[in-house]
Amino acid sequence: MKQFTISKANEYLQQDVTINGWVYNIRTSGKILFVIVRDGTGFIQCVVVKSQVGEETFENIKHLSQESSIAFTGCIKEDQRSPWGYEMEVTEARVVHAVTEEYPIQLKDHGVGFLSKYRHLWIRTPSQRAILMIRAEVVQSIRDFLNNNGFVNFDSPIITGSAPEGTTSLFTLDYFGEQAYLSQSGQLYQEAGAMALRRVYCLGPTFRAEKSKTRRHLTEFWMVEPEMAYCDVKESMQIQEGLTLYIIKRVLEHCKKELITLERDIQKLEAVQSPFPRVAYEDILSLLNKHDRDKKWGDDITGLDETIISNEYDQPVFITNFPKESKPFYMKESQDDPRTVLGSDLMAPEGYGEIIGGSQREDDLEKLVSKIQLAGLNPETYQWYIDLRTFGSVPHSGFGMGVERMTAWMCGIDHIRETIPFPRTIERIYP
Amino acid sequence: MKQFTISKANEYLQQDVTINGWVYNIRTSGKILFVIVRDGTGFIQCVVVKSQVGEETFENIKHLSQESSIAFTGCIKEDQRSPWGYEMEVTEARVVHAVTEEYPIQLKDHGVGFLSKYRHLWIRTPSQRAILMIRAEVVQSIRDFLNNNGFVNFDSPIITGSAPEGTTSLFTLDYFGEQAYLSQSGQLYQEAGAMALRRVYCLGPTFRAEKSKTRRHLTEFWMVEPEMAYCDVKESMQIQEGLTLYIIKRVLEHCKKELITLERDIQKLEAVQSPFPRVAYEDILSLLNKHDRDKKWGDDITGLDETIISNEYDQPVFITNFPKESKPFYMKESQDDPRTVLGSDLMAPEGYGEIIGGSQREDDLEKLVSKIQLAGLNPETYQWYIDLRTFGSVPHSGFGMGVERMTAWMCGIDHIRETIPFPRTIERIYP
Repeated sequence: MKQFTISKANEYLQQDVTINGWVYNIRTSGKILFVIVRDGTGFIQCVVVKSQVGEETFENIKHLSQESSIAFTGCIKEDQRSPWGYEMEVTEARVVHAVTEEYPIQLKDHGVGFLSKYRHLWIRTPSQRAILMIRAEVVQSIRDFLNNNGFVNFDSPIITGSAPEGTTSLFTLDYFGEQAYLSQSGQLYQEAGAMALRRVYCLGPTFRAEKSKTRRHLTEFWMVEPEMAYCDVKESMQIQEGLTLYIIKRVLEHCKKELITLERDIQKLEAVQSPFPRVAYEDILSLLNKHDRDKKWGDDITGLDETIISNEYDQPVFITNFPKESKPFYMKESQDDPRTVLGSDLMAPEGYGEIIGGSQREDDLEKLVSKIQLAGLNPETYQWYIDLRTFGSVPHSGFGMGVERMTAWMCGIDHIRETIPFPRTIERIYP
Repeated sequence: MKQFTISKANEYLQQDVTINGWVYNIRTSGKILFVIVRDGTGFIQCVVVKSQVGEETFENIKHLSQESSIAFTGCIKEDQRSPWGYEMEVTEARVVHAVTEEYPIQLKDHGVGFLSKYRHLWIRTPSQRAILMIRAEVVQSIRDFLNNNGFVNFDSPIITGSAPEGTTSLFTLDYFGEQAYLSQSGQLYQEAGAMALRRVYCLGPTFRAEKSKTRRHLTEFWMVEPEMAYCDVKESMQIQEGLTLYIIKRVLEHCKKELITLERDIQKLEAVQSPFPRVAYEDILSLLNKHDRDKKWGDDITGLDETIISNEYDQPVFITNFPKESKPFYMKESQDDPRTVLGSDLMAPEGYGEIIGGSQREDDLEKLVSKIQLAGLNPETYQWYIDLRTFGSVPHSGFGMGVERMTAWMCGIDHIRETIPFPRTIERIYP
């Protein structure tokens, strides 16, 4: 008998197969059991008839608790009435492991605090499974887009002795008796990589010890950080646009079922198109002030502001020409307007806020050193980074996209904590 | 003019293009300069003739130091005598950034200690570039193989409150005032993932605070950890074999130039074929004792032993049936021989040692709890992991493959520190 998974049901119509899976729900109707079975690749309804499997097996199945593991053998039929699309007429049934304790997660609504404690089981539910499948598609489509556009995977280190944007939000670590940090960005290392391999990216975990409890923050999150030598801020924004569109296209193509499970309004994703509007920071201030936000030059754009901005546009929006004081030392000063830097943030629509931050990098040796000093940082710590401007400096740009924020937008869910298998927040490192 | 990179030279024969790159080396022959230029995607010889570019430009170029950045425009020609395969006849030359300081890495041999200090520049050399290109191919071929075989990317957390194999080799972290650890394996979380999504994997950084200074150890390294529900140790070994062969095939197909740069004996890689020999631990002891290693039942297989074993076989070899005392608590006891567990290590040939460790996992609730206690660990810390055996336990298996060890084998290089962009060892976290 061929190896079968529920995801392949359409290839096995009218054939006898065995499902190795778990009981998700059982409904009894006299001498018939309707068992919803999951096997990790999907869900299917299995019909168990007493006269077919025998009284003893029937009774065994009937009393199984949720998440008991089973092996059902039978014929696969199409069933257009069923939300799962297929059905199995069970001829043989075997219990692999009968659950004897009450399953903590019932088929009813629980609070998020409770569910988070049982994250290792919560991920078995249809909605959480759908979110994690979409996350995997987001990750792979990022990699495919970059690999197909001349980028080389170049992993930045996680443990570092220096810190790109100061040490205030860094986790500290005992490294054989010395103090070290967990990286909050791989960017500086990507710049070294771009000078060696031209177009590079890292896609890995990054860490911020921020005491934020917002729906957009995790202490451990994944980020892709591409970096391009001989590339200015405009070309970088085109690449960001291309990447964003490609991810949407892939999710729409490969995750239709998951989007339906999540009741995602697919039309909103289908409507995204290039070019995304480019709006200067100064004009964003005017927009925010129309919403009584009382903003003046130099003010930060907060989470609330982001929501206002991204509700204003149907499309993702680039905010450009930020005041240099509001941005990190490595961003290149604009020659047209030295108050500003050649950086941009990409705001997702539907209130999802910033999904990408990018910039052209300061490639002038003296300016860079003076900006490091101005930021109160020690140039010695950054000597290797400064070397990149001493030895063959070239115009270069890069950006960082948050995997969880991108996934939350694709899924249409509120809080990014559900977009990663085991979220880490200020209050939670278990399980 | 079209956007050109050296990797695309064959598409631009007899066409005028601009190379934006860096000077790698200059040889002068009267009124002609032979400039080897790199642009991150490859190397090419550019011929600069004084009468063509003018005296001033000619003199400017002539005195450029290594790693100065330049833009050369001219016609691409095939050149079969050249190791680079193509040549540019330069008609216009522009200096982007002239290096005025002496470049630390000369075109001669330096010691590894010195080069490691300049890792951010060392990666620009042909051999280091080749190794990192092969690493990227290894990573992407792992992902492609798994994605094409029903596996879902499922990222394990890095910061954890508990520790799979005890806390002795863990880095500790201050997590908002509480003690936490950097993960040394994502496996336990992958087991939770496999119960939810059937076949999963993580591919990310892992950390071991071991004071080893061997050529096979880094404190920070990348590992792929696939985990499969409803899968026994034999099927797992088949998947490991398939993955290993696929990586070799992809590296041979896509990295021919890089393998030549590294002077890799390609025939040795081409000769690898399935099935890999499966040899029981007990028989490995006999083999080692023939080499006067004086081994008895229960002894560890050390790095030196690994070298002996992997020199003995032309092929990768699985070592199976390990004594249970030598292996972690989560490995499933063999029913045929309860002294042993259903685990295997895959040894690469040519002295490369262990590249994969895998096992079927203990799926019996009581046995697992008693083994956790026997290992001196606290079952409470592992409650979520134990839950996986309480609620729908199924036979399952998984393994971990080290990305750097696999890359070192592919490259035919001695020390794994060159297989990662910025290696972390007990002595080095800079740059």
